[in-house]
Amino acid sequence: MRLPDPDTTTIADLGAEMHGFASELFPLCRSITGDGLRETLRRIGTRVPLEIREVPTGSKVFDWTIPPEWNVRTAYVRNSRGENVVDFESNNLHLVGYSAPVSARMPLDELRPRLTTIPEHPDWIPYRTSYYEETWGFCLSHNALLALDDGEYEVLVDSTLAAGSLSYGECYLAGEREDEVLISTHVCHPSLANDNLSGIVVATALAEFLASLPRRLSYRFLFVPGTIGAIAWLHANREHVSRIAHGLVLTCVGDSGDTTYKRSRRGDADIDRAVAHVLRHSGDDHVLIDFSPDGYDERQYCSPGFDLPVGCFMRTPHGQFPEYHTSADDLDLIRPESLADSFKKVLAALSVVENDGVCVNLNPHGEPQLGRRGLFRSAGGRKRESIDERALAWVLNLSDSTNSLLDIAERSRLEFHSVRAAADALLEHGLLEERA
Amino acid sequence: MRLPDPDTTTIADLGAEMHGFASELFPLCRSITGDGLRETLRRIGTRVPLEIREVPTGSKVFDWTIPPEWNVRTAYVRNSRGENVVDFESNNLHLVGYSAPVSARMPLDELRPRLTTIPEHPDWIPYRTSYYEETWGFCLSHNALLALDDGEYEVLVDSTLAAGSLSYGECYLAGEREDEVLISTHVCHPSLANDNLSGIVVATALAEFLASLPRRLSYRFLFVPGTIGAIAWLHANREHVSRIAHGLVLTCVGDSGDTTYKRSRRGDADIDRAVAHVLRHSGDDHVLIDFSPDGYDERQYCSPGFDLPVGCFMRTPHGQFPEYHTSADDLDLIRPESLADSFKKVLAALSVVENDGVCVNLNPHGEPQLGRRGLFRSAGGRKRESIDERALAWVLNLSDSTNSLLDIAERSRLEFHSVRAAADALLEHGLLEERA
Amino acid sequence: MRLPDPDTTTIADLGAEMHGFASELFPLCRSITGDGLRETLRRIGTRVPLEIREVPTGSKVFDWTIPPEWNVRTAYVRNSRGENVVDFESNNLHLVGYSAPVSARMPLDELRPRLTTIPEHPDWIPYRTSYYEETWGFCLSHNALLALDDGEYEVLVDSTLAAGSLSYGECYLAGEREDEVLISTHVCHPSLANDNLSGIVVATALAEFLASLPRRLSYRFLFVPGTIGAIAWLHANREHVSRIAHGLVLTCVGDSGDTTYKRSRRGDADIDRAVAHVLRHSGDDHVLIDFSPDGYDERQYCSPGFDLPVGCFMRTPHGQFPEYHTSADDLDLIRPESLADSFKKVLAALSVVENDGVCVNLNPHGEPQLGRRGLFRSAGGRKRESIDERALAWVLNLSDSTNSLLDIAERSRLEFHSVRAAADALLEHGLLEERA
Repeated sequence: MRLPDPDTTTIADLGAEMHGFASELFPLCRSITGDGLRETLRRIGTRVPLEIREVPTGSKVFDWTIPPEWNVRTAYVRNSRGENVVDFESNNLHLVGYSAPVSARMPLDELRPRLTTIPEHPDWIPYRTSYYEETWGFCLSHNALLALDDGEYEVLVDSTLAAGSLSYGECYLAGEREDEVLISTHVCHPSLANDNLSGIVVATALAEFLASLPRRLSYRFLFVPGTIGAIAWLHANREHVSRIAHGLVLTCVGDSGDTTYKRSRRGDADIDRAVAHVLRHSGDDHVLIDFSPDGYDERQYCSPGFDLPVGCFMRTPHGQFPEYHTSADDLDLIRPESLADSFKKVLAALSVVENDGVCVNLNPHGEPQLGRRGLFRSAGGRKRESIDERALAWVLNLSDSTNSLLDIAERSRLEFHSVRAAADALLEHGLLEERA
Repeated sequence: MRLPDPDTTTIADLGAEMHGFASELFPLCRSITGDGLRETLRRIGTRVPLEIREVPTGSKVFDWTIPPEWNVRTAYVRNSRGENVVDFESNNLHLVGYSAPVSARMPLDELRPRLTTIPEHPDWIPYRTSYYEETWGFCLSHNALLALDDGEYEVLVDSTLAAGSLSYGECYLAGEREDEVLISTHVCHPSLANDNLSGIVVATALAEFLASLPRRLSYRFLFVPGTIGAIAWLHANREHVSRIAHGLVLTCVGDSGDTTYKRSRRGDADIDRAVAHVLRHSGDDHVLIDFSPDGYDERQYCSPGFDLPVGCFMRTPHGQFPEYHTSADDLDLIRPESLADSFKKVLAALSVVENDGVCVNLNPHGEPQLGRRGLFRSAGGRKRESIDERALAWVLNLSDSTNSLLDIAERSRLEFHSVRAAADALLEHGLLEERA
Repeated sequence: MRLPDPDTTTIADLGAEMHGFASELFPLCRSITGDGLRETLRRIGTRVPLEIREVPTGSKVFDWTIPPEWNVRTAYVRNSRGENVVDFESNNLHLVGYSAPVSARMPLDELRPRLTTIPEHPDWIPYRTSYYEETWGFCLSHNALLALDDGEYEVLVDSTLAAGSLSYGECYLAGEREDEVLISTHVCHPSLANDNLSGIVVATALAEFLASLPRRLSYRFLFVPGTIGAIAWLHANREHVSRIAHGLVLTCVGDSGDTTYKRSRRGDADIDRAVAHVLRHSGDDHVLIDFSPDGYDERQYCSPGFDLPVGCFMRTPHGQFPEYHTSADDLDLIRPESLADSFKKVLAALSVVENDGVCVNLNPHGEPQLGRRGLFRSAGGRKRESIDERALAWVLNLSDSTNSLLDIAERSRLEFHSVRAAADALLEHGLLEERA
């Protein structure tokens, strides 16, 4: 069964809908632990069946230890006139992620090393964290820094760093088979839109869409804090990862740039070939890049002890758009049509792996006579069915049990679903058998 | 032994001779069965030793059934003034191949759906057949159609579709070895010159030429009706196809276009490499294309149950010249010099596979001393024999039993026969041994 | 351990020093045997520990026989006025190498066929030899030939061709392992600078430099007469060649052209990849060429019975500079900076094979937490150590026992030593284990 292409109206609506969900999640203060993260997962859970897992502080997950849980009530820097010159309430990026509690008064000189700005983009607030080294600090626009006078400042970080847990969400959609497709997206960034509310809303929309369809493969959507969350999930599921047949990390999928696909460590996994196939046939500009051990959680899934077939689907890669990890990565940076296009392309790639298979020509000696089965053009040169004759010929010729339908699509340069349709017609006429 | 290059005069004569034979065969009404086909085979048989096989109507050959035999006495469309406005006698393309008998009177309205023309080429008669769906029809030039008035027409197709047989011809030239080279060409098209009298006359000339020479390999020339004939031959010989070491389908080898070679399904069979080698060293423009399951009988030989090493040697591929399957594919479209050039190139490729082999350097530790054997340039810098020293060095270096002489020619970028000549010199001096 | 980069001053000094040694060796009359060769080896032996081997005339070495030893006392052509118009004393190229003794008087007519010149370069003396065909002759500039008058000439070649031996030198530097690196250079050419005093002085300098360092691999420097000397060495060591893990022939390494590297017969031996890596990262223009069985002693080391991983490191290849095998290949053609650059590049390639290895990530499930080990950038975005973080990530990701550090450098496009340094840091922190 082919995953249906949503029609044009549905796709446009979906773009707006996804952007709306991103807007809803935008203000929450997410981090790798804490209540903002939990609330994000809860809201995803209102749309798709989501199991929320809690991994207690102090748990060992391979080489890592789950850190204390971090929560913030309030945080500010207040000047001598009682004005909050930096305020967590106005933008959660102002506080360095995982800042330890502090309450103090100090002159600007002493405060200054705790303040981070971006002089090249003087209106933007940077995003900084310090998960594993206890410290505190604030981020602010460079212009705001320049406006500070030399007086005394009151600094308050009313946060807790305490035993608790790391939360992640898992949406499992069982299919006919145990083989599963892993879609992973990181949920640990606060008010940043492309990185990675875009990934969250596209993953949620895909899960919602797939939940309503019959599925050959099973699908597992992970909403995990970056790095530590993926490692925690891998640790909990280390005995079962062999069921992951295909996987994608989704990140930065909302900006207006071209699609970028980064291959899995294997480089020629089916998912790598399926995404490349879809992008090539999309007619849109796109970029294919080889695996490298930087980026997002594909680093963990592709670590040598796992080496899973997991690539990373993006538009503009992290660090290649100037707004990356700043307050300018906001709801204006992501566009409904880009979110919708990402949704459509990922779905198309999933439709390839969902429908791929290996067939065997039951009549391999010479060509079978397609004409008498109504599968060949008639005397007048018109063909009888809407099946591509070239695809029929290619499927018959290459179905010798060594080639998958995707292999056949690649070698024939035909689009996958025209090959699949030809195989279906041949299966129906008893000329082909699909291998289990 | 090298298949001798025919000299320039012989080649020019041969071009004229082949064109003459094409002219002789041109008027015959060939189809996939019938007396025109049989007469064509009989005339080929006057030039080369040919066994003519008859496969009875109704025989099962894999997924196909041999159809009734078709013969035509006469066929026309006659107007109310008694004039034959379409007449099989004037051009056998006028009758749709395998037209069932009919004798009727009808107005133009009713006749019109039975008439096929090519509006873009209003003077040309198209070529159409309907082998497996019983019908009748006529083909005519579009201008002739426009000249028809609205009156009544008398239609006569005096044909028979009756139990009989499908005929094909087989010319086998035994060599020292059982391994054989298959040259197959289709003989089912009526008055069309490039497709495929060109293939028929070049194949006949090659068989005639090879019959007079000592041969290491055996050669089998098939003159078969397209598709059904090749399938019938494969069915009859299904237990013996493993002896086919190399094969070529010859078609459209007479037009003035560049040579096109379509590789076998395997893509790197020896014949694929041999033809590519010859074309590369010919200095002529040429096109190499990958296998695809369309085209001619290579589709049957390369079906997955056989997967034989058979490529297709052409000049302009079918469908890429406007005259294809029309009355404009006539004796003017094919040229003596093109026929001769095709002959020469196919022969050169056969000479490569005929002379290829694997040798072993009997003195593999360091180079042997060629100088004392008169195989190296003397003190004055002049070499003693007409053997290419580079070829000697390459043959010695790569003859470790894993490389064939064609492998060596390819890696060294030397022409095959200079490598073969070097190997022969080294064999003569006891420095090399050829593997059986 | 990394072979240390000599600093810039050392390299400049080394260039001058090597050129000086070439100047010292230049006047000696080397051939494939004889006292000039022996004296050359003796002088090399004053710089590096050198075993000098003598292989007696008449010894069988594979397909070859060691020829008589050749020595020359004097040789000239004297005109009727008693003037030496061609004189071995003024330039040893004047006498064809291995000229048999002769003492005769003859007119120019009779002498003329014994005289070789280069009309296109009328001031240059060509270099010719006739090792295996007994003859005699002289080489002279074309202008000198034109100045000869038609009178009688006295010809004297006061040489001996007598039982003796072929000499070669071997400098072995034992390392921790028996696996060895073979550096071979030919020592049989008389007063020619680039071909091959350049190879001799660079090899000598490398041996001197390596002798003073700890070495993981063992190194064997061969100073051998071309062809026959390499074959003699291979014959004597035929049971032990499997210990040669990497090898280079050095020749024509002193001219001002770009570096050229000719790959071993295998094409992808570690040394081929190491040299290509070094050249690519050098930023300098360079040329990589595939193996061919011409050139220098790589022909013998790469003969099919040995197929050793030995490439050829050159600047401008033999025959591609006009001065090749003429008196214009003199001390001005080779430049101190080119010699030094060749030294540096070969050393860098040796440093790659010396330091290459295969590691295993001991923490292969997900990434290890580098931050707590001080191997990752701190909160402020500054990293703690001078180790390239990308290299750390690549080494961890690819160290699954199938990839060498050079493989990792190639796939990551990082420079080898930054990969090695990352591996060393990870080894130190117990995150990696190096395979024996």
